[in-house]
Amino acid sequence: MIALFTDFGLADPYVGQVRAVLAMQAPGVPVIDLFHAVPNFGIQAGAYLLPAYTQYLPPGTVVMAVVDPGVGGPRRAVFVRAGDRVYVGPDNGLFVVLAERTPGATSFEITWRPPRTSSSFHGRDLFAPVAAMLARGRMPDSHPTVLTAPADGPWPRDLPRILYIDHYGNAVSGMRAETLSAQASLRVGSHVLTQARTFAERAPGEGFWYENANGLVEIAVNQGRADQVLGLALGDPIAIV
Amino acid sequence: MIALFTDFGLADPYVGQVRAVLAMQAPGVPVIDLFHAVPNFGIQAGAYLLPAYTQYLPPGTVVMAVVDPGVGGPRRAVFVRAGDRVYVGPDNGLFVVLAERTPGATSFEITWRPPRTSSSFHGRDLFAPVAAMLARGRMPDSHPTVLTAPADGPWPRDLPRILYIDHYGNAVSGMRAETLSAQASLRVGSHVLTQARTFAERAPGEGFWYENANGLVEIAVNQGRADQVLGLALGDPIAIV
Amino acid sequence: MIALFTDFGLADPYVGQVRAVLAMQAPGVPVIDLFHAVPNFGIQAGAYLLPAYTQYLPPGTVVMAVVDPGVGGPRRAVFVRAGDRVYVGPDNGLFVVLAERTPGATSFEITWRPPRTSSSFHGRDLFAPVAAMLARGRMPDSHPTVLTAPADGPWPRDLPRILYIDHYGNAVSGMRAETLSAQASLRVGSHVLTQARTFAERAPGEGFWYENANGLVEIAVNQGRADQVLGLALGDPIAIV
Repeated sequence: MIALFTDFGLADPYVGQVRAVLAMQAPGVPVIDLFHAVPNFGIQAGAYLLPAYTQYLPPGTVVMAVVDPGVGGPRRAVFVRAGDRVYVGPDNGLFVVLAERTPGATSFEITWRPPRTSSSFHGRDLFAPVAAMLARGRMPDSHPTVLTAPADGPWPRDLPRILYIDHYGNAVSGMRAETLSAQASLRVGSHVLTQARTFAERAPGEGFWYENANGLVEIAVNQGRADQVLGLALGDPIAIV
Repeated sequence: MIALFTDFGLADPYVGQVRAVLAMQAPGVPVIDLFHAVPNFGIQAGAYLLPAYTQYLPPGTVVMAVVDPGVGGPRRAVFVRAGDRVYVGPDNGLFVVLAERTPGATSFEITWRPPRTSSSFHGRDLFAPVAAMLARGRMPDSHPTVLTAPADGPWPRDLPRILYIDHYGNAVSGMRAETLSAQASLRVGSHVLTQARTFAERAPGEGFWYENANGLVEIAVNQGRADQVLGLALGDPIAIV
Repeated sequence: MIALFTDFGLADPYVGQVRAVLAMQAPGVPVIDLFHAVPNFGIQAGAYLLPAYTQYLPPGTVVMAVVDPGVGGPRRAVFVRAGDRVYVGPDNGLFVVLAERTPGATSFEITWRPPRTSSSFHGRDLFAPVAAMLARGRMPDSHPTVLTAPADGPWPRDLPRILYIDHYGNAVSGMRAETLSAQASLRVGSHVLTQARTFAERAPGEGFWYENANGLVEIAVNQGRADQVLGLALGDPIAIV
């Protein structure tokens, strides 16, 4: 399986062109659009969402992860073996949190280059072909070089900020819920929120935090939009009180 | 074939995670993203759109239909055999219109539970595995219990309200066009609209109602946005005049 | 491979219903959602984006291209053999630029009709079945008629206007970059922009034009939204200065 995790959005032709490459170069391999809504150029947000959103993918999955504002510049291309999965993308910090949290994770530089590369779309021209190779059990380079100092980082293991607001208005943070006590209260803006296990535990319109289905602390309002009800925006800090 | 009908949207990681489960548990079965834009928590809107949008799917299709504001609460899980298709989802009214309109439709409670379930994402953790089982000809429970009193309902067979506004600005109602005379006029807000068979029958900018490609009464404006030109919003009532 | 290029958007049920038809009638053929965001009813924008966005698709690809404001009226249905690919859709100008630029391109009228056709959704009812036939090596008509005078056009080979604004805010034009010197400056609104090869060549917030990954002239701002920074909108003219 190949899973895609990018900031490409779905409206533009970019995901379709990546999929066309994968259909040609890895025929028969299922391709999953896991997440294309990383906030534009949001390397750090992507770095914290990536391990959460990919943790339930089956062993052997190749994740093509591309948030790449420096495309065309000097940043390297990498693939990272982390647990039973492989991640492919730019070496710009996107894999730092994943690598720090996964014992034995190893990053390899990709020096292979396709015959023709655009200057702005390495997702299609470089990373998709490499993802196709890896999904078919081939290596892009015959003697891959281990990267001992991946770009950027280290970053904290958990980031107490709002990194993504989903279409229900729920605010997803970069904190793993397992690091918090269920008795913890969280302050965001002027609101102090306690924990709930399910939406149904709270009255309609009431705000709370809970462990979302990907293990992250998420701020929600039962049958309402937390972003509007609580006045939340991307990047807002969250404090444990 | 497995078809997905939800309020998950496409931007968030939810559809991708459902698809990853289906790719693992029903490998080789085509999966169709039929509709993920049921208005958030809109059980009733979903109930009227579901039979319309799924009526042309081939015999044997398994429809995973999830609009589930009560997830984590006491609502049951069901699958419904209706005609040649099977529907899987929460027992909260979403299948009421489908069942009432389909002779012989039968609802079964799902008591099977996966080893691990999140409290907020039964689409991924419960309904997708059950859809995969049914698509492969297996039953989730060895002796499924017929539900004689499905949750909620009965609701009217047709709902004269605007349930969905598509990206062209066309307003889709919960009324089947076959229940109306082509001579009927419809009042919505301060506008009275007559029927057209095609967009091309009307002058650009002119409003009308017509039978859309899924058999529903739809309000449209030739080469314009009906929602803006006519001032329409979700939930607006429609009167036959 | 079948690639889809439409103005259907992704939120509505239209793409899913097309895919259900293709899954039934061309089982096993990969289907790619290449682009569903042609501006609504934007035949001319679609005509210039179509050859750019489909040029890297593999030989043998069937492209179903539907931007069809005249559906239900007298416009013909066509398929166009252009290079190694086949295009299927309405004969309303959408294929004019493709045909003019591709030596030997030939348009054929489709007279085949399905047993049942809605008046508003020929994408699902007519073009998808024909695309499925062509993808399986069958012809919709036993003696297809060559169209010697395709509808509309001729149009200029390049269109110096903004035809699409992507989700990063980059503005895509209808001009092929190969027709311009790298020394050319472009005026759009009150701004005069010079060429860059990559985003990384410019300071954050600076505007420029470049050859995008599909060979078109695109106006961008490094790490910013060109539409907002430069005040750009769909249809804005671009002048070479």
